[in-house]
Amino acid sequence: MLYPEEFDVIVVGGGHAGTEAALAAARMGCKTLLLSHNIETLGQMSCNPSIGGIGKGHLVKEVDALGGAMAIATDEGGIQFRILNSSKGPAVRATRAQADRILYKAAIRRRLENQPNLTLFQQAVDDLMVEGDRVVGAVTQVGIRFRSRTVVLTAGTFLDGKIHVGLNNYAAGRAGDPPAISLSARLKELKLPQARLKTGTPPRLDGRTIDFSRCEEQPGDLDPVPVFSFMGNAAMHPAQVPCWITHTNERTHEIIRSGFDRSPMFTGKIEGVGPRYCPSVEDKVNRFADKDSHQIFLEPEGLTTNEIYPNGISTSLPFDIQYQLVRSMAGLENAHILRPGYAIEYDYFDPRSLKSSFETRSIGGLFFAGQINGTTGYEEAAAQGLFAGVNAALQCQGKSSWLPGRDEAYLGVLVDDLITKGVTEPYRMFTSRAEFRLQLREDNADMRLTEQGRTLGLVDDARWESFNRKRDAVSRETERLKSTWVNPRNLPAAESERVLGKAIDHEYSLGDLLRRPDVRYAGLMSLDAGRYASADVSRETLAELWQPVVEQIEIAAKYSGYIDRQKDEILRAAQYEHLKLPLDFDYLGVPALSFEVRQKLNKHKPETLGLASRISGVTPAAISLLLVHLKKSRARGFAAAAKSEDEAAA
Amino acid sequence: MLYPEEFDVIVVGGGHAGTEAALAAARMGCKTLLLSHNIETLGQMSCNPSIGGIGKGHLVKEVDALGGAMAIATDEGGIQFRILNSSKGPAVRATRAQADRILYKAAIRRRLENQPNLTLFQQAVDDLMVEGDRVVGAVTQVGIRFRSRTVVLTAGTFLDGKIHVGLNNYAAGRAGDPPAISLSARLKELKLPQARLKTGTPPRLDGRTIDFSRCEEQPGDLDPVPVFSFMGNAAMHPAQVPCWITHTNERTHEIIRSGFDRSPMFTGKIEGVGPRYCPSVEDKVNRFADKDSHQIFLEPEGLTTNEIYPNGISTSLPFDIQYQLVRSMAGLENAHILRPGYAIEYDYFDPRSLKSSFETRSIGGLFFAGQINGTTGYEEAAAQGLFAGVNAALQCQGKSSWLPGRDEAYLGVLVDDLITKGVTEPYRMFTSRAEFRLQLREDNADMRLTEQGRTLGLVDDARWESFNRKRDAVSRETERLKSTWVNPRNLPAAESERVLGKAIDHEYSLGDLLRRPDVRYAGLMSLDAGRYASADVSRETLAELWQPVVEQIEIAAKYSGYIDRQKDEILRAAQYEHLKLPLDFDYLGVPALSFEVRQKLNKHKPETLGLASRISGVTPAAISLLLVHLKKSRARGFAAAAKSEDEAAA
Repeated sequence: MLYPEEFDVIVVGGGHAGTEAALAAARMGCKTLLLSHNIETLGQMSCNPSIGGIGKGHLVKEVDALGGAMAIATDEGGIQFRILNSSKGPAVRATRAQADRILYKAAIRRRLENQPNLTLFQQAVDDLMVEGDRVVGAVTQVGIRFRSRTVVLTAGTFLDGKIHVGLNNYAAGRAGDPPAISLSARLKELKLPQARLKTGTPPRLDGRTIDFSRCEEQPGDLDPVPVFSFMGNAAMHPAQVPCWITHTNERTHEIIRSGFDRSPMFTGKIEGVGPRYCPSVEDKVNRFADKDSHQIFLEPEGLTTNEIYPNGISTSLPFDIQYQLVRSMAGLENAHILRPGYAIEYDYFDPRSLKSSFETRSIGGLFFAGQINGTTGYEEAAAQGLFAGVNAALQCQGKSSWLPGRDEAYLGVLVDDLITKGVTEPYRMFTSRAEFRLQLREDNADMRLTEQGRTLGLVDDARWESFNRKRDAVSRETERLKSTWVNPRNLPAAESERVLGKAIDHEYSLGDLLRRPDVRYAGLMSLDAGRYASADVSRETLAELWQPVVEQIEIAAKYSGYIDRQKDEILRAAQYEHLKLPLDFDYLGVPALSFEVRQKLNKHKPETLGLASRISGVTPAAISLLLVHLKKSRARGFAAAAKSEDEAAA
Repeated sequence: MLYPEEFDVIVVGGGHAGTEAALAAARMGCKTLLLSHNIETLGQMSCNPSIGGIGKGHLVKEVDALGGAMAIATDEGGIQFRILNSSKGPAVRATRAQADRILYKAAIRRRLENQPNLTLFQQAVDDLMVEGDRVVGAVTQVGIRFRSRTVVLTAGTFLDGKIHVGLNNYAAGRAGDPPAISLSARLKELKLPQARLKTGTPPRLDGRTIDFSRCEEQPGDLDPVPVFSFMGNAAMHPAQVPCWITHTNERTHEIIRSGFDRSPMFTGKIEGVGPRYCPSVEDKVNRFADKDSHQIFLEPEGLTTNEIYPNGISTSLPFDIQYQLVRSMAGLENAHILRPGYAIEYDYFDPRSLKSSFETRSIGGLFFAGQINGTTGYEEAAAQGLFAGVNAALQCQGKSSWLPGRDEAYLGVLVDDLITKGVTEPYRMFTSRAEFRLQLREDNADMRLTEQGRTLGLVDDARWESFNRKRDAVSRETERLKSTWVNPRNLPAAESERVLGKAIDHEYSLGDLLRRPDVRYAGLMSLDAGRYASADVSRETLAELWQPVVEQIEIAAKYSGYIDRQKDEILRAAQYEHLKLPLDFDYLGVPALSFEVRQKLNKHKPETLGLASRISGVTPAAISLLLVHLKKSRARGFAAAAKSEDEAAA
């Protein structure tokens, strides 16, 4: 049957990518249909019950700045929030939250159910409708044909999914869910460049059987509890709970090694490559044979369940090994496994065959997002989903596609990396992937993106008004600070010493003073009984916006110098694009580089620095480090370059 | 791998049967393991979001009286409660509740997760371990072997499940869930007597697209809101919401008929027989061709979702017909279908091959419960689950099995019907199936069963104490009423007239007076300024138990006569066991019998009344009616019987 209504955008899949894709296209006014094999699993967290982390939190804030759901759903479902790297610079600070799985899923489903222009329909998709070189719809398992102008495919791990536990395996899209076999076969017929990846998940434990007194408690940040969404607040959060830490030990590693001969990874049963940065525990024990312990986080899965997620022991070893390895750890001596850990293999498609809009090159109107593009992580999926949803909607509106630059958003870095470098293993985000990372911070995701989001139609009035209040306050106050002057005559020396640490010797603007590392905005405002304070930038006037406004003012003052320098460096590095690299160079001897980068460079032996920079996994940060090393060691061909640069810098 | 721990009872399946089985065995102190293909779907309501109804509510209260979870979970998740037949006698009064699917599931999961002696494990079961003629465990999809002394199989619709929508079909255990193929094949190898049944579910609607102003509102009972569990109270209930009513019409029926040629039922694609009392809408239109309208209840699926369950249009017609038929009804002109309706075929096993404990005759230690025994309904499943869980536990304890009599519980009727009559179509409970229905009431389920439950180990201290307080109060007060006398001298005539309607002419006990139809307990207690009231049976003393205690006292007083007469009738009917029935008799001409019973008797033409009574679907009530008809019409062989009975009665 041909469904009587026609849609602008069909999104296939209701995970993190599909959710943001469907919501984004609908927010932009497109008639959108979300097809999912099961409405009950919309927004399900298939693996760990947490959102965010370094690089990933940045993506979540960007999705949020563009009106997406992930951050605010986390605010509604989050049971532990932490700011990682809180003692480091603002660029690498990141929010991470544990979520109650049930609350998170409910928050997502409520948004999907109530989004205007968005229609839900439960049924697995078995086929795409293709006419000529364009997709024109999707066909469900019982043959219902939905026509549409574009299709966004977010199939996660479902395409020909195969679950492995030891040498046993079976077809599944996720534990408990059926795989998408027909759709996988159909996509192969369409001759899209496809291969296999794998990912994995740890066994889940019954908290009633854990002795937490033998573990170390890890509380969240409680004063204040962090907030994820620019539109969120701490009052949205449910009760906050701690996590717990235990460790693997030599006995654990022995047990793990004793299962190597029945590991589907080591015996070649699994063809797909797994995520390097979320490795299985057997992979860690194998690769880092010298380490005799790894930290394991015991994360509660929710407020109403006893289930515990042991972050760090993802495994596809046989169940008897899982059973023993769990029980070898402190506190877990009697731990009952509720669900076995497993690996899952699935189809992905080479993202280099996508246009920069994530539309496939070969089939017009067909967009891919999420794990199908070779990535790993909820956050990477959500960001891609939003991106593909926007570009599908723009195509329907006859507008040209949207791609934020690498200097505007991690989303831009993510997309650019995928379509230019492709992947050889599941791709995850890191701050080191962003050459402009000093300006791509969590704190300014809204400043970078909300105006673009408003133009695209992604940002509703409430967010837009809040954003404008914040932006206006920041810019007015920044101007005021620049034009408000203090000098030794009008500032009592005692006050200057109290706030600035020493008396001032000549006239300064407040803006100048704020650039000093130890000077805080609140201190300046307290100077001389508050005579320099602004009524516009006060807790009374700005309420919840006060803290973010002050943060923006301070960061802009303190980091503008670094950011300018970063831009210069990037410009300079670009000159080395064609610089030849020594072909006999042993990259393993460059300790500043990560082991991954050393391996990859040694394997590829790129001819130029430009080629090196386009190897998947070789980050802009690595290129800078390599350049420094080569210059220092005066490697062949770099002597001159280093020399001329030294001269230029002089 | 052989799992290192051994269990007393393994329950396979986490639906309504599996839940009660696992909880019951664990309450009885047995080391119990619940194996489910997905922990997320424990307690899921696969079809309608409601619990109870006539006959079914009775089962729920019995399960509750034995410490089960269904009633109290409904109290925690119920968003509309009604007492059906509230104007009729207490025997046929029944509680029915709409539940919020998410809250109900959460209430069940919380109980399963926290039940002592109960262990959960997520993994589909592919095989049973059998040694000789005994089951000794179960094997999961990845080959984990769990050893146990008994296994309770509650596979629902999963065994070789096949979903049909029109002429399309695919393998599934339920929409969105994988089927159990391997286990089905394995059970066939074991040569248990197996056949196919089918059931169905309606399309689900998006409430945002329904015009409720064109529907009739059906509120629940609000003053007071009914309560399901003997341990429940109205404060447990979430917010209460109304349902809505619309109707099919001639246009709807035309649309439905236009799909008959693509109906999997009418074209023979479906082999299994469906539930007579929960028929698909095409079945209703086909069988009751003269009716030009059927009532459709629009039931909300929860407080946080817009989904609406249209009770009454279960269908496996092609989706284009579903789409049109929905939109042909008032209020549903623009209704969007979120999930298509479908039929599902699955394996069941002839329950006549079970012992009266629900242990299979051929494989020791293997128990079946729920739809696998050919029943339909959450309540029937829960009751069987509890029953099988108890008997598996008793076997582990070396005790003989437990079976409440047909005069003790609907549970007894259910089990006895199944094991003696078998099924030809999915079996559901009715009050007419119980010959002792006047004494098998919802209100006295605790009085009938809680003491047995305590002896079995099913009833915890809190319930046992509450039950004893209630029972003691009822029995003390009943005795007091019997021995408290009023007479014309000590009861002022005006008071007598106010409460009893007229002056009394001689001495009566209060117990005697309470037997009068129009006299209420509260009235008696108000006589003569409360001089006959008891301090022990007061709202102050009994709190929430007061109303149930008074109810028991009143019902016992008013109905004991009827109940005695019913016992006599049953005794008399038993004499007719061997009475020959005329083989040429046309049962279609007996209007007092239901169409179902007429059909079945005409098909079987049983030789004796005893044989007639054992035909599946021929209820004790029908046998009584048939006897009356035969006597009245003085059918051959009955003239004499009727005559001699007339003489005996004279």
